[in-house]
Amino acid sequence: MTRIFRRRFGIAFALLLGCLGSAWAQTSDPLPSWNDGAAKKSIVDFVARVTTPAGADSVPAEQRIAAFDNDGTLWTEQPMYFQGLFAFDRVKAMAPQHPEWRTTQPFKAVLDNDMAALAATGEKGIAEIVAVTHSGMTTEAFTKIVLDWLATARHPRFNRPYTDLVYQPMIELLGYLRANGFKTFIVSGGGIEFMRPWTEKAYGIPPEQVVGSSGVVKFEIGPDGKPVLMKLPQIEFVDDGPGKPVGINRFIGRRPLLAFGNSDGDQQMLEWTAAGTGARFMGIVHHTDAVREYAYDRQSHVGKLDKALDEANAKGWAVVDMKQDWKVIFPFEMK
Amino acid sequence: MTRIFRRRFGIAFALLLGCLGSAWAQTSDPLPSWNDGAAKKSIVDFVARVTTPAGADSVPAEQRIAAFDNDGTLWTEQPMYFQGLFAFDRVKAMAPQHPEWRTTQPFKAVLDNDMAALAATGEKGIAEIVAVTHSGMTTEAFTKIVLDWLATARHPRFNRPYTDLVYQPMIELLGYLRANGFKTFIVSGGGIEFMRPWTEKAYGIPPEQVVGSSGVVKFEIGPDGKPVLMKLPQIEFVDDGPGKPVGINRFIGRRPLLAFGNSDGDQQMLEWTAAGTGARFMGIVHHTDAVREYAYDRQSHVGKLDKALDEANAKGWAVVDMKQDWKVIFPFEMK
Repeated sequence: MTRIFRRRFGIAFALLLGCLGSAWAQTSDPLPSWNDGAAKKSIVDFVARVTTPAGADSVPAEQRIAAFDNDGTLWTEQPMYFQGLFAFDRVKAMAPQHPEWRTTQPFKAVLDNDMAALAATGEKGIAEIVAVTHSGMTTEAFTKIVLDWLATARHPRFNRPYTDLVYQPMIELLGYLRANGFKTFIVSGGGIEFMRPWTEKAYGIPPEQVVGSSGVVKFEIGPDGKPVLMKLPQIEFVDDGPGKPVGINRFIGRRPLLAFGNSDGDQQMLEWTAAGTGARFMGIVHHTDAVREYAYDRQSHVGKLDKALDEANAKGWAVVDMKQDWKVIFPFEMK
Repeated sequence: MTRIFRRRFGIAFALLLGCLGSAWAQTSDPLPSWNDGAAKKSIVDFVARVTTPAGADSVPAEQRIAAFDNDGTLWTEQPMYFQGLFAFDRVKAMAPQHPEWRTTQPFKAVLDNDMAALAATGEKGIAEIVAVTHSGMTTEAFTKIVLDWLATARHPRFNRPYTDLVYQPMIELLGYLRANGFKTFIVSGGGIEFMRPWTEKAYGIPPEQVVGSSGVVKFEIGPDGKPVLMKLPQIEFVDDGPGKPVGINRFIGRRPLLAFGNSDGDQQMLEWTAAGTGARFMGIVHHTDAVREYAYDRQSHVGKLDKALDEANAKGWAVVDMKQDWKVIFPFEMK
C-alpha cells in the first residue's frame, strides 16, 4: 500500500465514519431514559414501520412530520403555565411605572400574589395581563425580555431555571425521530414569540418549526427610519383545541404522522393525526409522578386530561405513564 | 491488496463520492442559465461571504433563510395572476349549478369574459369571486381542485400548463442556495393553499416553507365521524406589502438573509431584510423581455414595480434584467 493510497484510504474511511455515524448510533438504545414497556415499544415499532424502505407502511422522509404540544408534553406546566408566571413577573417588574396598578384589578391581585382575586377577574383579567405584558414593544425587544427572564427566574418548587424543566425522555424522542428523517414541530397553545427564543437550544427545534398562539404584529418605520414589527394588544390566533389542526394546516400544510400531547387541548390535534391514511402514531404524556414531577389529570385546572384520556383508551393511542415509563424526568437528574 | 480490503475501499470510496458529490457539483457553474454580469456576480459573492467558515460575514447554516416572492419572481404573472385565472375558470365550471350567475355581477362579467365589467365591480367583486371559488369545501377537496386545474388548464399565450412557466434561472438559484445550507421559503401574496399542492415539485420548496395569504379554516367533525378542515369565505391574512414582514415573522420567526421580489408588494419584505445586521442580499426581478416573456414595471396593473425600483436603485439592491441576465427564461426552452 503506497503512502498516498493509505492517505486516501484514511480520508475515505473518515468520511465513511461520518456518513454512517447516525446509523451506527441507532444500533445502541435510542431512547435510554425510557423503561422497556408498551409505550417505548409502540414508538420504536411505529418508527420502524414508516421508515423501512419498501415496507407496506413506508413513508417518504419529506412527509415524516411529527407534532408535539409543549406545556406538559415537552416541559413542566405546574403549578401554572410558565408563560403565565412570566406574565406575573413582568407585571411586577413594570409596576413602578404604573402606580395605578396598586389599586386596579387584575394588576393588584398579581402584585399581592392573590390568586383568588385574580381568578375572580376571569378571562377578561387574564387577557388584560397578557396584553400589557406581551405588547407595546418590538418583536426584538420582546425576545430580549423573554431571554432575560429565563436567565434569572427560578421555578418555585425546583428552584431552577424553567428551561431546566424539559423532559429528558422527550428530548431523546425528538432526536430519535429526527435521526429517522422526521421534521419535528412544536404545536402549542403557548405564545409563538414566547417559545421561539429558546426552543432551538432546549429541543433542537428551530423557530420556523414552532407553531403557537399569537398576537397581532404591525410593520412600522421606527424613529431611526428602520423598519420594526410592533406587537399590538390584540390576539390573532389561539392554537389550542380545535385551533391545533387549524394551526397545523396553516403553518405546516401537511398532516402529522405522529403527534404527542398531554391534555384535552391536544385532543383535536390527535384526532386530526389519527384520521390520516396509513400508519399514524398518537401519544399522550400522563402525569403520574407526584414525587419526581406532578400527578394530575381529570380534575386539574392546568393541563386537564379527561376526554382525551377516554379517547386514547378507547382507540388504543399510546399513553405514557411518566412514573412507570420514564427512568428520569429531567436532564439534571442524569448528572 | 486483499480482496476484502478492496471491497471495503470500494464501499468507502462510494460513500466518499456521495459525501463530496454536492461539493464537487459546485466547482462547475451553479447558475448556468445566468449570463455573467453584475447580478450573477452579486449573488455568488454574497453566498461566498456568508458561507465562508470563519469569514467576517459568516452565518451559521441554521440562520440562512432565503425568502422569495412567487408571482413574477418564480413564475409568470401575466396577463394576470394565475390564481385569478384559476378563480375565473372555477366560476365557469361551477356556473351550471348557479343559473343566477348569468344575470348577477361579478359572475356575469366572468362568464361573459368582460374584464371591463369585472373591473367595475371593484375589490368587492373580486372578493366575492375569491370567496365562492376558494371556500365551502374541505382543505383536501380544494387541493384536488387546484391539481386538477393545473393538469388541464393552459396559459393563453404560451399554450402550456401554468407550472411550465416557472423561471429556470430562479430554480437554479433556489438549488444553489440550498446546496449552500440555505432554507428556501416562498413569501407570496398568493393563497397559501393554492401554492402548496405544487411548489415542492416545481421549486423543491415543501408545504411547510410556503408563506402566503389565507382564508379562515374551521375544524369540524364530518358526516362520517372523521374530522375535516372546512374552508370558510372569510379572509384571514393578506401576505402582501407590509404583510410580508408580518408573515415572515409569523411563519419563519427569523429575518431572511436574502430576499427576492419583483414588485412594490415586495418592498417592505426587502426593507425588513435589509435592516438586519451583517451581510444581506436584496434582489428584484425586472421584467424587461417582451419577446421571451413580458416587459412591464411602473405602469403595470399586475406586478407594478415603481417605488421598490427607486429604492433598489438608491440603495444598490440587485436588479435582475431578465433580458440581459437570463440565457433562458423557462425550462422548456432548454429542451
